[in-house]
Amino acid sequence: MSRARRDALRATAAERGLDAVLVTNLVNVRYLTGFTGSNGALLVRTDGGDLFGTDGRYTTQAGTQVPDVELLVDRATVPALAREAVRSRPGSPPARRIGYESHDLTVDGLHGLERVLTDAAAGGTVPELASVRRAVEAQRAIKDDGEIEALRRACAVADQALAELAAEGALRPGRTELQVGRELDARMLALGAEAPSFETIVATGANSAIPHHRPDATVLADGDFLKLDFGATVDGYHSDMTRTLVLGHAADWQREIYALVAESQAAGRAALAVGADVVAVDSAARDVIVAAGHGEHFTHGLGHGVGLEIHEAPGIGQLGAGSLAAGMAVTVEPGVYLPGHGGVRIEDTLIVTDDAPELLTLTSKELLVL
Amino acid sequence: MSRARRDALRATAAERGLDAVLVTNLVNVRYLTGFTGSNGALLVRTDGGDLFGTDGRYTTQAGTQVPDVELLVDRATVPALAREAVRSRPGSPPARRIGYESHDLTVDGLHGLERVLTDAAAGGTVPELASVRRAVEAQRAIKDDGEIEALRRACAVADQALAELAAEGALRPGRTELQVGRELDARMLALGAEAPSFETIVATGANSAIPHHRPDATVLADGDFLKLDFGATVDGYHSDMTRTLVLGHAADWQREIYALVAESQAAGRAALAVGADVVAVDSAARDVIVAAGHGEHFTHGLGHGVGLEIHEAPGIGQLGAGSLAAGMAVTVEPGVYLPGHGGVRIEDTLIVTDDAPELLTLTSKELLVL
Repeated sequence: MSRARRDALRATAAERGLDAVLVTNLVNVRYLTGFTGSNGALLVRTDGGDLFGTDGRYTTQAGTQVPDVELLVDRATVPALAREAVRSRPGSPPARRIGYESHDLTVDGLHGLERVLTDAAAGGTVPELASVRRAVEAQRAIKDDGEIEALRRACAVADQALAELAAEGALRPGRTELQVGRELDARMLALGAEAPSFETIVATGANSAIPHHRPDATVLADGDFLKLDFGATVDGYHSDMTRTLVLGHAADWQREIYALVAESQAAGRAALAVGADVVAVDSAARDVIVAAGHGEHFTHGLGHGVGLEIHEAPGIGQLGAGSLAAGMAVTVEPGVYLPGHGGVRIEDTLIVTDDAPELLTLTSKELLVL
Repeated sequence: MSRARRDALRATAAERGLDAVLVTNLVNVRYLTGFTGSNGALLVRTDGGDLFGTDGRYTTQAGTQVPDVELLVDRATVPALAREAVRSRPGSPPARRIGYESHDLTVDGLHGLERVLTDAAAGGTVPELASVRRAVEAQRAIKDDGEIEALRRACAVADQALAELAAEGALRPGRTELQVGRELDARMLALGAEAPSFETIVATGANSAIPHHRPDATVLADGDFLKLDFGATVDGYHSDMTRTLVLGHAADWQREIYALVAESQAAGRAALAVGADVVAVDSAARDVIVAAGHGEHFTHGLGHGVGLEIHEAPGIGQLGAGSLAAGMAVTVEPGVYLPGHGGVRIEDTLIVTDDAPELLTLTSKELLVL
């Protein structure tokens, strides 16, 4: 699988006139090799003969996780790979033009590479460095079957964790946001998650009007909204789901904004189609909220890609660009936030397909009154 | 507190002929402002009038955590701060020379800043960008009283978590590394940690010979080493401790290498003094192990600074540079690893003082046979 991914990057590199690409972004390295350690980089050569670099802590792990790529162990991983790129090998000329990830490499890192290449040239022509931009991120936006299966499992863990907590009465007045958040996290771990996808959001009462509230000692109270935004990581893949419940009894204003957000969310899901412009997808959901006079209370984009990172391409919002393709994994998460009062967000993770999108987060979106 | 830290950076900037410093490293931003969100940057002006930038998600949080610095809310936080730096203000000329963190800013980020400054110059002289290197990291290496107190609490949580697990018999043959690791993490959270300091290492039997083993389904067995390397984060500060126990009954070879590592570790602690060269501190501990013929089995540096990051300045090893100063928080963690057999590491977190170092990790270092 990771071999096919490297070949796709190799083809991009060849198209762009690069002899090699130095991949430094650790998530991209994981995607292209399977390596999960905290230090690794990859040299993909246009004519083959890739090289994976890490330091001595990871020699064993690299052997297990990256058995199909030649290994280079060096504390200064990235410069060492660059040195190899411009070394003569039997049958292959040294690289003259090397791609690098300018959105990842630091200014100091680039200067280090420039020094390596200048030294290697020994007075001759210094090889050129050229940014490949987000070439690997563009590949990662389209998920393969194995990735979609991991996302399904990640979403199932989150669904199950919430169902268990609700069934056990853990979401009841008198408990604190922090308690609920910790139990949700612990339950996801017990169900096989490697970690929560991000810092779990538990926001009750007026806190629910804060889009990214951090759970605190606020006590759940009767009649309050309870907004839960959370996810599980499984095999490196992140699920992302938000559900908003009401405790005890729902007031009319709560039912109204809940119904509005649910309608907007359904419109957003319905707009997920191959070829759809991401701005149009955002508008499909946003127009529902604007028409109800709450446009100013929906203060963020509609959604984002999910995968090895919780936020990745494509961004779905008014400032986004591009269109959807089959195999993209995205969230649809409109919200209406009434400051000082309360807010509702409803979020699913879905896969774009040639047909209707596949819904991965299966928890009911009916307003649940607990 | 953070005001004094910004003033210290301001003095450094003035010394270096900079009109302002743009701090982009998020940990440095937290250190200088108290802000704990995931997007923020800080402009420190040599003539005062600092500016904290973040995006709309964090407007409320910034008001609470950074009440004493003027706030700029902008999605494109760093370019927006640069634009402000070169804008004319009453009584202050626009910055002509701006420091930035070249170890943190990406190549794309630097190009973005260059575009902002070129636009702002409107055909006139473009302000200059100059790296401040790790100026804030150098400040961070010396902890103030509040930071040392946070580290004390972080170490106390880890001590207490281990004591409770041992007392409850959770460290016994038949359990898996993963179970022990998760219980240690859960216990630290229950005792008030925000998170484990890093992925907790539980390594038993031959796994204990792998310096950074990731806990797996390996079952704890009678006569095995059990190496636990873990820590708690409290108020953002990280503790770091390793203890190696034996299950059931300790064999002679286990007692021998344990005694050797303990002697080395004591020598390392004794070498922690104001003005001591970090290479000499490493040698003080390493010489003990080399003299016993195990030099090749101690495969890493002796220690590292700890604080808002689990690894920070100073590095204590043969490749380190510089000397210790009062207020530095460091680890001392020699190890002897016999591949395929077993290994011992003993690690404390300590504060360098004008007197003897203050030991923060108080768990006994006697060989514990459980």
